[in-house]
Amino acid sequence: MKGNVIVGQSGGPTAAINSSLAGVYRTAKDRGAKKVYGMLHGIQGLMQERYIDLSQFITNELDTELLKRTPAAFLGSCRYKLPEIFENREVYDKIFEILNKLDIEAFIYIGGNDSMDTIKKLSDYAIVTGFPTRFIGCPKTIDNDLALTDHTPGYGSAAKYIGTSVKEIIRDSFCLEYSKGLVSIVEIMGRNAGWLTGAAALAKGEDCTGPDLIYLPELPFDVEAFGKKVQELLKKKPSVVVAVSEGIRLPDGRYVCELGQSVDFVDAFGHKQLSGTANYLASYIAGEIGCKTRSIELSSLQRSASHCASRVDILEAYQVGGAAVKAADEGDTGKMVVLQRLSDDPYQCGTEVKDVHKIANDEKLVPRDWVNDSGNYVTEDFISYVRPLIQGDVSPVMVDGIPRHLFRPVEFDAPQQPE
Amino acid sequence: MKGNVIVGQSGGPTAAINSSLAGVYRTAKDRGAKKVYGMLHGIQGLMQERYIDLSQFITNELDTELLKRTPAAFLGSCRYKLPEIFENREVYDKIFEILNKLDIEAFIYIGGNDSMDTIKKLSDYAIVTGFPTRFIGCPKTIDNDLALTDHTPGYGSAAKYIGTSVKEIIRDSFCLEYSKGLVSIVEIMGRNAGWLTGAAALAKGEDCTGPDLIYLPELPFDVEAFGKKVQELLKKKPSVVVAVSEGIRLPDGRYVCELGQSVDFVDAFGHKQLSGTANYLASYIAGEIGCKTRSIELSSLQRSASHCASRVDILEAYQVGGAAVKAADEGDTGKMVVLQRLSDDPYQCGTEVKDVHKIANDEKLVPRDWVNDSGNYVTEDFISYVRPLIQGDVSPVMVDGIPRHLFRPVEFDAPQQPE
Repeated sequence: MKGNVIVGQSGGPTAAINSSLAGVYRTAKDRGAKKVYGMLHGIQGLMQERYIDLSQFITNELDTELLKRTPAAFLGSCRYKLPEIFENREVYDKIFEILNKLDIEAFIYIGGNDSMDTIKKLSDYAIVTGFPTRFIGCPKTIDNDLALTDHTPGYGSAAKYIGTSVKEIIRDSFCLEYSKGLVSIVEIMGRNAGWLTGAAALAKGEDCTGPDLIYLPELPFDVEAFGKKVQELLKKKPSVVVAVSEGIRLPDGRYVCELGQSVDFVDAFGHKQLSGTANYLASYIAGEIGCKTRSIELSSLQRSASHCASRVDILEAYQVGGAAVKAADEGDTGKMVVLQRLSDDPYQCGTEVKDVHKIANDEKLVPRDWVNDSGNYVTEDFISYVRPLIQGDVSPVMVDGIPRHLFRPVEFDAPQQPE
Repeated sequence: MKGNVIVGQSGGPTAAINSSLAGVYRTAKDRGAKKVYGMLHGIQGLMQERYIDLSQFITNELDTELLKRTPAAFLGSCRYKLPEIFENREVYDKIFEILNKLDIEAFIYIGGNDSMDTIKKLSDYAIVTGFPTRFIGCPKTIDNDLALTDHTPGYGSAAKYIGTSVKEIIRDSFCLEYSKGLVSIVEIMGRNAGWLTGAAALAKGEDCTGPDLIYLPELPFDVEAFGKKVQELLKKKPSVVVAVSEGIRLPDGRYVCELGQSVDFVDAFGHKQLSGTANYLASYIAGEIGCKTRSIELSSLQRSASHCASRVDILEAYQVGGAAVKAADEGDTGKMVVLQRLSDDPYQCGTEVKDVHKIANDEKLVPRDWVNDSGNYVTEDFISYVRPLIQGDVSPVMVDGIPRHLFRPVEFDAPQQPE
């Protein structure tokens, strides 16, 4: 490489997104990039000239290893969707002025659907205006809902955490006896796609019966049928554990969580705020059956639990970062790196690049035939798909009993000028 | 030992309670016990003649290692308080009839305050009636609220999980930017004692600023002052993370969680149900400041996260189990094994036995001078106390990407007759 590289992180954080950042940095350096800049808080921060020289923070190989083990977005993230080019050219002019000033040869953006939309628009604009910077996307999302890639970095670690935690919850739930039984409802992220919720099935094994019921958001949820099913199960066992997606909806399209409270507010990004699905169902079951219930939300822990990361996931995230730089260096633009699975057993997976126009804004859901006929559990096909992605561990670097992370003080968030 | 040993688990589960069970089993076997029975669901199960021969389940050294890594109570637990002897002698007659039938030389009970009350009453009864069984208690509780012992097995692992998770939450909370900032409220267990909530301070280190505020249940909570403090902090930083005990109360004694909802129901054990403290405070802050807020309950994960256990804790739990058997074998009864810290740095700790009459029903709270003057953070003394207890890891035995546990199918829960 002759020029510089800039890399940004966008969307919800994961346990693996910084491993992709490490992969971008190391590969760019190996390929001769003079500087590797990190945009702070994604494209939104870049427009405010907020960026850092990554070599300030990654000074040696230990730092690289720490970065791979640091959850959440080291550079900060944003949720910002670029306007259409014809709607607002000024935004593009501003961005390209900065890229020009920094002599950026490759622009790498690590993110989900919205981020791939950014790569698409910027590469389109560059091609149309003859600007030489090349734009490559790195997939990242715990939700695993990106099209064309077998899976997304970040998903495997979240799935491992969910499988592990649900298993520990199941163990916990059999300790105390309640006259009418105990029903534990575990709420898992994934508004539209059930990849994370389905991972609760990973708790099942020779030493664990696994959750009893799993409800994905892809299928309509029948509250009454659910109550009956739980009642049936309680006749056979003292503790029932249910995994539900935060996004399960009634046949009429309303979210289940809307039943319990008056949450019709939307968050800053125009998304309906979801929370309380498990709470609502726990109250419903308590009311219907009179048994003891509890609700457990895995909350942001499931996307930031680096201490329980999957080795396969962290390594793939790193490779994907490296592959993005390689693709840009070899002249690609407007592409996303994808993971292509070659085989399940033994698991083999490689990277490819695909046209980002075919990816952006498309959501990959769990196929209907990976859920059983009753719609209350995932099938063996689902489990065979996810199982390889949670293999192996990444030992945290423990300092005084707690995992060490690579640290960027928040003071660096202010706008900076290039040296 | 010439006779048999019986061991039970009682109260809330922890990540270390099974390590004490492993210590009891191994030491009893080493000292020549013919049989080691496990009462199922504690003294309550024993009264229904529900017990197992532990050698059915622990067949080799690998099983012992798995048991040490298995969260929650392998034998099942109960919350049952024995009546006073003068109130109901029949209960005692029934228990001692079973102990006699099983030729029990040593009765070991692993639990918290209520369990030590059980040891006290049974040993009193045995002494009065001339019954030869000896009764020894093993401390266990994540709450760390038992008197006379420096700390309780189970606390260190919960503290390590809390420190680790709070650190990951802090990382996560700095990713996205919100115009008026983000306030994350983490709700931690501990109804009356702040040992667990204070452990959130372990997140603080060279690479992490730690939580901004920590509120223990020992001190009255002023909602308005809290709001002002958060507002002040938001002027200086974009993300504020607060750790609160589930049991914080207003100066008038009402629980903070009562403010948000009409929860005046009590659970099966006559305890007020607590939940929603973080939820309430998050809504309060959102309303007062208009910033983005989120609430995270660490829930039962904090007591069952064996995958993140502390090595010091798991080893001490094992030692305490062994010391209980040794004490009984040497003729002690009506005693609890306690941990006595010899030094902080290097950390050294040994076991002793103390008269259970001095322990039962006494609750150890965080000393006032281990909380700062403003009542919103723990001091260095607190951190020096807890830090040694979270050191070292216990690698889980990973099978197919998920930690393996020792498994007791629930079918064994039914009453059994001795062979």
